[in-house]
Amino acid sequence: MSNTMKAMVYYGENDIRFEERPVPTIIEPTDAVIRITKTTICGTDLGIWKGKNPEIEAVARQKTGEWKGRILGHEGIGIVEEVGSAVKNFKKGDKVIVSCVSRCGSCENCQKQLYAHCEKDGGWIMGYMIDGTQAEFVRTPFADNSLYHLPDSLNTDVAVFLSDVLPTSHEIGVQYGNVKPGDSVAIVGTGPIGMGCLLTAQFYSPATIIAIDMDDNRLTMAKEMGATHTINSSKEDAVAKVLEITGGKGVDCAMEAVGIEPTWDICQKVVKAGGHIANVGVHGKSVNFELEKLWIKNLTITTGLVNANTTGMLLKSCESGKLPLAKMATHHFKFAEMEKAYDVFKHAAEEKAMKVIIEVA
Amino acid sequence: MSNTMKAMVYYGENDIRFEERPVPTIIEPTDAVIRITKTTICGTDLGIWKGKNPEIEAVARQKTGEWKGRILGHEGIGIVEEVGSAVKNFKKGDKVIVSCVSRCGSCENCQKQLYAHCEKDGGWIMGYMIDGTQAEFVRTPFADNSLYHLPDSLNTDVAVFLSDVLPTSHEIGVQYGNVKPGDSVAIVGTGPIGMGCLLTAQFYSPATIIAIDMDDNRLTMAKEMGATHTINSSKEDAVAKVLEITGGKGVDCAMEAVGIEPTWDICQKVVKAGGHIANVGVHGKSVNFELEKLWIKNLTITTGLVNANTTGMLLKSCESGKLPLAKMATHHFKFAEMEKAYDVFKHAAEEKAMKVIIEVA
Amino acid sequence: MSNTMKAMVYYGENDIRFEERPVPTIIEPTDAVIRITKTTICGTDLGIWKGKNPEIEAVARQKTGEWKGRILGHEGIGIVEEVGSAVKNFKKGDKVIVSCVSRCGSCENCQKQLYAHCEKDGGWIMGYMIDGTQAEFVRTPFADNSLYHLPDSLNTDVAVFLSDVLPTSHEIGVQYGNVKPGDSVAIVGTGPIGMGCLLTAQFYSPATIIAIDMDDNRLTMAKEMGATHTINSSKEDAVAKVLEITGGKGVDCAMEAVGIEPTWDICQKVVKAGGHIANVGVHGKSVNFELEKLWIKNLTITTGLVNANTTGMLLKSCESGKLPLAKMATHHFKFAEMEKAYDVFKHAAEEKAMKVIIEVA
Amino acid sequence: MSNTMKAMVYYGENDIRFEERPVPTIIEPTDAVIRITKTTICGTDLGIWKGKNPEIEAVARQKTGEWKGRILGHEGIGIVEEVGSAVKNFKKGDKVIVSCVSRCGSCENCQKQLYAHCEKDGGWIMGYMIDGTQAEFVRTPFADNSLYHLPDSLNTDVAVFLSDVLPTSHEIGVQYGNVKPGDSVAIVGTGPIGMGCLLTAQFYSPATIIAIDMDDNRLTMAKEMGATHTINSSKEDAVAKVLEITGGKGVDCAMEAVGIEPTWDICQKVVKAGGHIANVGVHGKSVNFELEKLWIKNLTITTGLVNANTTGMLLKSCESGKLPLAKMATHHFKFAEMEKAYDVFKHAAEEKAMKVIIEVA
Repeated sequence: MSNTMKAMVYYGENDIRFEERPVPTIIEPTDAVIRITKTTICGTDLGIWKGKNPEIEAVARQKTGEWKGRILGHEGIGIVEEVGSAVKNFKKGDKVIVSCVSRCGSCENCQKQLYAHCEKDGGWIMGYMIDGTQAEFVRTPFADNSLYHLPDSLNTDVAVFLSDVLPTSHEIGVQYGNVKPGDSVAIVGTGPIGMGCLLTAQFYSPATIIAIDMDDNRLTMAKEMGATHTINSSKEDAVAKVLEITGGKGVDCAMEAVGIEPTWDICQKVVKAGGHIANVGVHGKSVNFELEKLWIKNLTITTGLVNANTTGMLLKSCESGKLPLAKMATHHFKFAEMEKAYDVFKHAAEEKAMKVIIEVA
Repeated sequence: MSNTMKAMVYYGENDIRFEERPVPTIIEPTDAVIRITKTTICGTDLGIWKGKNPEIEAVARQKTGEWKGRILGHEGIGIVEEVGSAVKNFKKGDKVIVSCVSRCGSCENCQKQLYAHCEKDGGWIMGYMIDGTQAEFVRTPFADNSLYHLPDSLNTDVAVFLSDVLPTSHEIGVQYGNVKPGDSVAIVGTGPIGMGCLLTAQFYSPATIIAIDMDDNRLTMAKEMGATHTINSSKEDAVAKVLEITGGKGVDCAMEAVGIEPTWDICQKVVKAGGHIANVGVHGKSVNFELEKLWIKNLTITTGLVNANTTGMLLKSCESGKLPLAKMATHHFKFAEMEKAYDVFKHAAEEKAMKVIIEVA
Repeated sequence: MSNTMKAMVYYGENDIRFEERPVPTIIEPTDAVIRITKTTICGTDLGIWKGKNPEIEAVARQKTGEWKGRILGHEGIGIVEEVGSAVKNFKKGDKVIVSCVSRCGSCENCQKQLYAHCEKDGGWIMGYMIDGTQAEFVRTPFADNSLYHLPDSLNTDVAVFLSDVLPTSHEIGVQYGNVKPGDSVAIVGTGPIGMGCLLTAQFYSPATIIAIDMDDNRLTMAKEMGATHTINSSKEDAVAKVLEITGGKGVDCAMEAVGIEPTWDICQKVVKAGGHIANVGVHGKSVNFELEKLWIKNLTITTGLVNANTTGMLLKSCESGKLPLAKMATHHFKFAEMEKAYDVFKHAAEEKAMKVIIEVA
Repeated sequence: MSNTMKAMVYYGENDIRFEERPVPTIIEPTDAVIRITKTTICGTDLGIWKGKNPEIEAVARQKTGEWKGRILGHEGIGIVEEVGSAVKNFKKGDKVIVSCVSRCGSCENCQKQLYAHCEKDGGWIMGYMIDGTQAEFVRTPFADNSLYHLPDSLNTDVAVFLSDVLPTSHEIGVQYGNVKPGDSVAIVGTGPIGMGCLLTAQFYSPATIIAIDMDDNRLTMAKEMGATHTINSSKEDAVAKVLEITGGKGVDCAMEAVGIEPTWDICQKVVKAGGHIANVGVHGKSVNFELEKLWIKNLTITTGLVNANTTGMLLKSCESGKLPLAKMATHHFKFAEMEKAYDVFKHAAEEKAMKVIIEVA
C-alpha cells in the first residue's frame, strides 16, 4: 500500500485541486480508516468551493497553526482498512457505509439522539472540519457509531445515498414534517434532497405529493418517482395551484428543499391550519415570517441538520427495494474524472444531473 | 325573568357601550343559554375595542344585512338556563365553565382535535362572530362540546381562567413548547397569558423558568408564582442574560407571549439546538426569521389558537390545588362597574392588574 | 316508501331470521336514517348467532321490558334517507359510509378520541344494543360523528371495509402495534382482520411481514396481498420459523388476530426486546402471560376496540388505490340471499371466503 | 494505593462474603475505574443472594473456565481513579454517579435508546456478569456512556438513587405508564421502586396517587411523599377501594412494583378503559392475563428493564430539589458494617427500612 493517495482538496474560494495527499492513519482509538469505493458530490461541497465556508480555513489555522487545504466530501461507501483499539463493531475488510455525521454517543446531545449537535467534536465534520471522503482513503472518527455494515444485497449507488441524502431527506423533511398516510405534501425544490424527500415520504403513504420546481426535467423525474402532481413555479402561480389541488385548504406538510426566501414563502402560504413546514434547505439569509397570518394557524415549523439516527432503518427499507431509489444516480464517473464530475454536478440543470456517483475503487 | 339584560357591546373603533340588550334564546338544538355569574376581560377584547377587528362588523353586515353591535367576551362561568333539544350532557341549573372555543365535534378538523379550526361555524366565535359572555346571559353553540361541569370544590376565579387563559397557555405555550422535567424555559412576556404559561409549565417540572418582561411588578409576581429567574429586558440584555443563566447553551423552550417582533427576536436568539419556540402572542406584523442561523439548529417552532382540548384535564389539575392560580385574579368588580373594569385592565401596568374578575351575578 | 323492510334478526342462540321489520325512524335530533346499499357480515355477527352475547337480550328486556329480536350488522354503505334536526353535515340523498362506532363526541372519553368507550350510549352499539345494518334501512345515532361521505371515486366494496375491518385493523393492529418503515411484523391469523392488518401495515413500509395461519388458501392470498413470508402453523413450528426469519431476534411487532391462547402465545414468544404485541382478537378466555420472561423485555402490549378515528384518513388512502383492498371481497350476494351469505361466511375456510359483500339495493 | 480492597462477594445460594479482593484495572480503552464513596443494596442483590440467578456462576465458568465469585452491586457514586485511552468525558478525580446500565452506544438497540438491551456486552452487567459496586473500587465499561458528573449541589444520598432506583421508577413506571397532569395513578407496592415511582410520578402532576401496600409503615411514608390516598391491601379490598376512589372508572395508570401475580392482578382489575399498566416488578412466574375482559379496553401494558436514558434529566430535576427524595435513605452504614446493612435490608419491614446507604469512603 502506497503512503499517498488521490484526493479532491479545497484550498479557498474557487480553488479546489485533485491532487496527491498522504493516506490518513488512526489518531484516536475510536477511529477507523476506510478505503473508499464509491463517493458522490453534495450541494454543500459546491458551496464550499464557491467560498461560502471560510470558517474551514480559519478553524484549521486556529487549531493547527497552518492551512494545508481540506479534503472534501462527507458521503461514500468503502472497505475498512484499519480500526483503532477501541473499535468493536468493525474489522479490516468489512464493507461499510460512511455516515456524514460523526457522534461521540455520550454527550448530552448524543444522549438525546441529537447527533447533529454532538458536543465532542462530532456532528457534520468530515469534508468540513476534518478531511473527507472524496479520496482513496478517509479516517472516520467514532467509527462504531458512524459506520454501517453494507449488505451485499443492497445496490451500491443507493448505499451512497445513505451517507447523507436519504437520512437528511427522511429525518429533516419527512419525519420532522410528520408525513402520515392520507396526507397532502408539497415539496418545494426537486434537487437531490427534494427528490429524497419525495422518495422517503412514500414510506408513509401520503395521498398527494405535489413537486414544485422551475426545471421541467426534474419535474418529469419527480413524476416518475411518485409525485402525484407537479408545478413549474416559473410558469405557474405555485401557491394558487397548490390551493386549487387541495380544495383551497392547503397541504398537511410543506417541505422547503432549496434554501432561499421565495421557496420558504411558498411553504408558508400553502400550509393548512394544523400543518407542518419542514425546512430542509440551507439558507444564507433571513426570511420574512408572516406571523400576523400564521400565529392563529396551529403550525409546526422545523429546521435541522441530519442526525443520521434513521440510517439503520433506511438501510433495511432500501434493501426491501420498493422505491426507485437507484434512479437518482443519473451520472457515473471514474475517480480520475473527479473534476469532470464536479463540473457536471455544478451544471446539474443543463446536464440533467441529479446525483453523480464516483467510482473510486 | 326579564327579556332584557345588561351587556358590554362593541360598536366600532373606540366605541363600546354598557347597555341593555335582549336576552338570547336557543337557536340550534345543540345550543344552551347560560346565566353568567363571573366573567373577565381578555387582551383580545381590548384589541377589538381599539378597532383591530373590523371584520366583526363586516361579517355581520354580510350575513344579516345589518349591524347592531356585538356583545364582547369569550370567558366566564355560569348556570345553565336552558338547553336545546339535542343537548345531552347539561340541564337547567347546572354550574358550568364556558369554553372560549366552540366545536361541532364532527368536521375534519374537530376529528383531529384541531377544534380551534372547526369548519362548521366553530372555533373562537363568542364575543367575535356571535354575542359573548360579558352579559347576564350568553348563548353557547355546541353546548355538549363547549361547556364543562364546574365542581363545587373549584375556586370560581380559577374556573374563569379555564375558559381561555389556562388552556391557551397550557396548549399553545407549554404543550406545543414540549416542556419536560429538567428543562430550561424562557417566558417572554408575563401578562396573563405568560403568567398562565409560567403556572402550567410547572405541571411538567422544568428545572429553570426564566421570566422576561419590562414591568418589575409583573416580574415580582412571576417570582412568587414559580419563576426561578427574572429579567427586566428594559434594563438588561435579555438574550445575554438567558445565555449566561443557561451556561451559554440557551433554553429548551422559549415562549413568545406578547406578539411583537422584539419578543419574537429574543426567542429565536435564546433557544438551544434541538429546542422549541412556542409562539403564543397575537401578532399584527411579520417578523424577521433568522433561517441563515437557525436552519441548522433542529428547532421546532409552533403557533396556534387554543383548541381547549385540555380544559378537562386542567380542571382536574386545578382542583388538586397545588399551583397558586388564584393569585392571578388581582382585581374584582361588580357587573355594574364593567366600564371601570375595562379601564383598569386597559391600564394594567399602572394598576398592577393581571386578570380582573367581574362578578355578574 | 313502504313502512316495512327486510332484515336479518337475531332472536337467540342459533336463531337468526331473515324477516319483515318496520322501517326505522328518527328518534333523537342527532340521528339519521340510511337506506343501505351494501353490507357485510363480521365474525362478531357469527359470534352473536352462536349465543356468545346473551347480554343483547338481557339489556333489551331491562331497558324496554320486552324482547323483539335485534337486527344484526354494524357495517355498510348507503344513502341518507332522513336526518334529525341537529344533523348538519349530511342531508337526504348523500352517499355515506356507516361507521361501526357511534360517538357523542363530547363525553370525557370522546374528548380523548377514545370513541370506542363513548360514555353516552355510543361505542359499538349498532347490531348489538340497537338495530343494525343488515337491513334495508338503519337508524344511526350521532350521525354527524358516525357517517362519512362516500366519494364516487371509491370502490364500493372497499368502502364497506371502512365501516369496521380497515379501521379496526389499522388502529388496533397497526397503529397500536407502532409499525414503522423497516420493521419486521408477524400477523398471527389471516382472516379478514388479519388481512386488514396486512394491508394497512403496508401504509408504513415494514421491511418484513410474516403471515401465520393454518389455512394454506389464506396464506396464498396473504402473499398476494403483500406478505413477505408465510407460515402454516399447523405444519411448521411458527415460533421457531419466525425466529429463523428474523435472525434469532424476533419481530418488532406481533399482531394477534384470532382471539385464542395459542395465537397469543405465538405472539409473546416471537416479539423482540423493545417490541410490540398488538392484540386485535376477541378473546373468550384468559391467557397465560409469561411475565417471568417478559418483564425484562421492554415490551408494549396493547388491546382494544376500534375508535374509528382514522376512518377519514383511511378513506383518503383507499382512494389513492395503491393497495389491493378490493381483493378481500371474495364473494358477492343479493340481499335476498342473506341466509346463504351467512352460510358461506360461516364456512369461510371451505368456501375460500374472506369477506362477503351483500348488495342490498 | 493497595492492590487489594474490601468487597461483598457472591459465591452461591445463601453464600455471600465480605472479603479482600484485588483492585480492578482497566481492561478495555473505554473503561474507567471508580473509587466508590457511597453504595447501596438493591432487591435484586437479595435475589442473587437467595440463589435466584445461578446463571451468574454458569456464565462465568463458561467464559473463563473458573468461578471466583462475583462482587455484588450495581449502584453507587465515587471518584474516578483511572480512565482508559478512549475515555473522553471523564478524568481522574472527577466525582461521578455510576449508572447500573452499561451501553456501547452503537449497536442496533443502543441506537434506539434501548440501552437495557445493548447487544455488545452492555445492559445490566455490573454486579451480575462482571464485578460490581459493593467494593472500594469498580471497573465500569463504556465509561463515557455510563457515568454522570456528580454536581456538588446534589445531595449524595439522592445521587446514589440515580444509579438505578430513580431511572427505573421514572422510565419503566412513570414514562412507560404515561403519567400526565390530572391523571389518577395506582402504585401497587411501596418498596424503594414503588416509592421512586411515587416521587417521579409527581414530575408530571397527576391529580390522584393511590399507594397500595400491606405495610402500614410504608404507607405512612408514601403519604408523606405525596400519595393522595393509601390502601393497606391486607386489610381492605384494594380493587374495590380504587374503584370507589375513582368514581367506578379505575385509574389512568396502574404500576406493578412488586413482581408477583396478586399485585399484577390488582393492576389488571383497576385500570380504566384507555389506561396503562406499567409492570416494573421482577417476576418469577407467569401470571393470568384476563384478555376476555381486557381485549376491549384499549389498554397499554408495558414491561422493562431501565435504559437509564433519563438519568441526566433526573439529575437536573433532583438538583432543583422540589421532591423529598432524600427521605428514602432511611438507614446509613459504614462499609465495615456491610453485612449488617444486608441484614437490615433483608428485614426491611421490621427495620422500617427503605433504602440503606453504605458510606464506603
